Amino acid sequence: MKQQKIAILGAGPSGLAQLRAFEAARQAGVQNLPEVVCYEKQNDIGGMWNYTWRTGLDKNGEPVHGSMYRYLWSNGPKECLEFADYSFDEHFGQAIPSYPPRAVLKDYIMGRIDKAAIFKYIRFECPVRWVTYDESSKMFTVTVMNHKTGEQETNEFDYVVVATGHFSTPNMPYFEGLEQFPGRVLHAHDFRDALEYENQNVLLVGASYSAEDIGSQCFKYGAKSVTISYRSNPIGFDWPEGMAERPLLTHLEGDIGHFADGTSKQFDSIVMCTGYLFHFPFMPDELRLQTHNCLYPDNLYKGIFFQPNPKLIYLGMQDQYYTFNMFDAQAWYARDVILGQIALPEADARQQDMQTWLARHEQLSGCHDSIDFQASYIRDLLGPTDYPDFAVEEQGELFKQWLQDKEENIMAFREKSYTSTVTGTLATQLPAPWLAIKDDSLESFMSLDFIESNTLDKID
Amino acid sequence: MKQQKIAILGAGPSGLAQLRAFEAARQAGVQNLPEVVCYEKQNDIGGMWNYTWRTGLDKNGEPVHGSMYRYLWSNGPKECLEFADYSFDEHFGQAIPSYPPRAVLKDYIMGRIDKAAIFKYIRFECPVRWVTYDESSKMFTVTVMNHKTGEQETNEFDYVVVATGHFSTPNMPYFEGLEQFPGRVLHAHDFRDALEYENQNVLLVGASYSAEDIGSQCFKYGAKSVTISYRSNPIGFDWPEGMAERPLLTHLEGDIGHFADGTSKQFDSIVMCTGYLFHFPFMPDELRLQTHNCLYPDNLYKGIFFQPNPKLIYLGMQDQYYTFNMFDAQAWYARDVILGQIALPEADARQQDMQTWLARHEQLSGCHDSIDFQASYIRDLLGPTDYPDFAVEEQGELFKQWLQDKEENIMAFREKSYTSTVTGTLATQLPAPWLAIKDDSLESFMSLDFIESNTLDKID
Repeated sequence: MKQQKIAILGAGPSGLAQLRAFEAARQAGVQNLPEVVCYEKQNDIGGMWNYTWRTGLDKNGEPVHGSMYRYLWSNGPKECLEFADYSFDEHFGQAIPSYPPRAVLKDYIMGRIDKAAIFKYIRFECPVRWVTYDESSKMFTVTVMNHKTGEQETNEFDYVVVATGHFSTPNMPYFEGLEQFPGRVLHAHDFRDALEYENQNVLLVGASYSAEDIGSQCFKYGAKSVTISYRSNPIGFDWPEGMAERPLLTHLEGDIGHFADGTSKQFDSIVMCTGYLFHFPFMPDELRLQTHNCLYPDNLYKGIFFQPNPKLIYLGMQDQYYTFNMFDAQAWYARDVILGQIALPEADARQQDMQTWLARHEQLSGCHDSIDFQASYIRDLLGPTDYPDFAVEEQGELFKQWLQDKEENIMAFREKSYTSTVTGTLATQLPAPWLAIKDDSLESFMSLDFIESNTLDKID
Repeated sequence: MKQQKIAILGAGPSGLAQLRAFEAARQAGVQNLPEVVCYEKQNDIGGMWNYTWRTGLDKNGEPVHGSMYRYLWSNGPKECLEFADYSFDEHFGQAIPSYPPRAVLKDYIMGRIDKAAIFKYIRFECPVRWVTYDESSKMFTVTVMNHKTGEQETNEFDYVVVATGHFSTPNMPYFEGLEQFPGRVLHAHDFRDALEYENQNVLLVGASYSAEDIGSQCFKYGAKSVTISYRSNPIGFDWPEGMAERPLLTHLEGDIGHFADGTSKQFDSIVMCTGYLFHFPFMPDELRLQTHNCLYPDNLYKGIFFQPNPKLIYLGMQDQYYTFNMFDAQAWYARDVILGQIALPEADARQQDMQTWLARHEQLSGCHDSIDFQASYIRDLLGPTDYPDFAVEEQGELFKQWLQDKEENIMAFREKSYTSTVTGTLATQLPAPWLAIKDDSLESFMSLDFIESNTLDKID
């Protein structure tokens, strides 16, 4: 039998999960493994976690993938994403607080990656240009632009794994008067440094994670005022003085923003925290996933196999409470299907399975429900694979606690400590309020004198 | 004989020129015209001239085309781009100054476009995804994403005219320390409003038109200081107090920029005025023009026919003194070849013709030489077509005067008046210094009391 060939598009968390899944099989001595090639647009692994100062287009003229910014700290507890086979204690050699800054969390995530083993699969600076599928040969043709050589490369594959993410292409609304607004207007995707907004009146449009976090950043780093404009409902936290919510922006006149409640205010800058588009410009219609940000996109059996053509696999296309462990569970499942260790049901059976999940998805009411839903989705994937079992449901309970802690104090929830579901370790505490710790570098953070949590503070 | 089909990619100045060329033939009663379809990424005609407040990616997730900014005034005399068959006098009904703001110039350029006649060819919000050529059928296959329907469309064409421009994809360099710079870093492509830089120390990297003009804008609208950093040679104008040139940036430490001469300075913002990439992500290698910004790109016979496959036509890919008239001359020539009215020589003869021009191009020394070179290139195209003859060489002399006027006073050259080569009209003068006229809208500009130029001021 001829060796199968697999293309993985993207070397971010999902693509890396798929590479690790195959590499784990190789190291376990599985025979007749497929040839795996991963095409990555950037010049390093990590996807979104590969912080870039660039915005707009990158050095090769390709859309910048990264949406992360300086001073970004984890907005969820690290205990909710801890790996069963690689604990925070093992990585850092000490207990650290529950909400680390970006660089610290990245250090952990990347700590499990055996770069020497993984890099050999990856072709960097190779954005995908076009993918087609030939019904007669049952093969995909993938054309990439190799920016290192300036030439394109075209290859055939049995499977294509799309792991290009869905938090990179801004959904950018229009409001009357934006053409005349005399300050910077950008999308959260292009937000980089809160210090740009020092002493400014900043308007954020949107009421989800981006608005909440970028608003907090701007407040922390000295914005004069932060106004969050919501379409349907306010975020509703007890914001500190200097931050406030208003209903939807209706239009702008010069630097004055007008809101649906008839109020108005002067602004120096606008950040659109209005979410992201699913964008696969390299995919023809018949292969392109068309969905929006939700917990169970339609047309994906087990959340990953494209129903019209299950040799096309989409990873990480869900809205996410769970992250890296979920991508891993998906990647392990996909690998086992590709290796023939899990049999893929016929189209009808797949459809039926999807319908069951979609029906449950439609009934979801509130965040706790959603967390439980994603937990059972992951549990369903974990069953048939050899991915290390982890405390899915317990991590779900931590998510619920996290929601409550944010509700209590949006400016201080990052000072809370949670107990590891892997090691039982209770996280240490920051030695100062989160608002007061302004250097977010790995070196600076790890040199802080973390405080042992009083077991009375323990949350579990 | 079956009707030919032509795809035009882009409805900016070059694409519009091609559409007008075919429409002119239709109105002249030419029979058996090809079917023409123009695919345009934006939702209006005008390309670069279609000002947008957006930066990065557009509402459909496609890279924003526009690089223009508020308060942009023509940086060359309007008399250098005047159409022989449509004068400024005819359009405005009065003599206006030689350097109009963007909106005024756009009004003129668009005034000649018969929208009803032209729009029928254009498919808006249809960025091109992929183009292939089939050697056996001698046809191109063009796939576009129709964002209005959310579906792709694939069609076959005998000819493809690439008119997508080359001032949209930033060439964005890296300097050590950019990751840590605590202010906005953007490319000239994303510059929109100089008022953002009021009271700031702005660093511009680059020494060409973008640096010169964005620097002047920032100075005009109240930047605290403007520093222009050059790689090889300073621009060398007599800058006003508050503007200065320094050699190349070597690195940044926090908000301090260090330069090759050992000096350093604090900056609040950085604008990279470092030019643009030729970027055709929708083109496979064998069809893709690979060149840089110059007056005679290699591999284009008559500056437009792709030598390996002359049914592929690239318009406006030259660096430009001449603009709209040159695009027209190219488009008329391309049309006449497509219609069989001009015979395309064999590959060898085309190669020989290109070599002659490239040899002359290599010998160019200085701006006057370059202007003369582009004039003769246009003259060569004009000969065989029925495009209205225009005063190519006289407009070239005006370009030379313009260079001298900039040298004299970079902050006041826009107050100079030139004589129309079409009507003989001497341009009127601004009623105030350019630096003092801050509202650049069409309405505001046209309501100014222009001053009749003293014939002693006359330049011709």
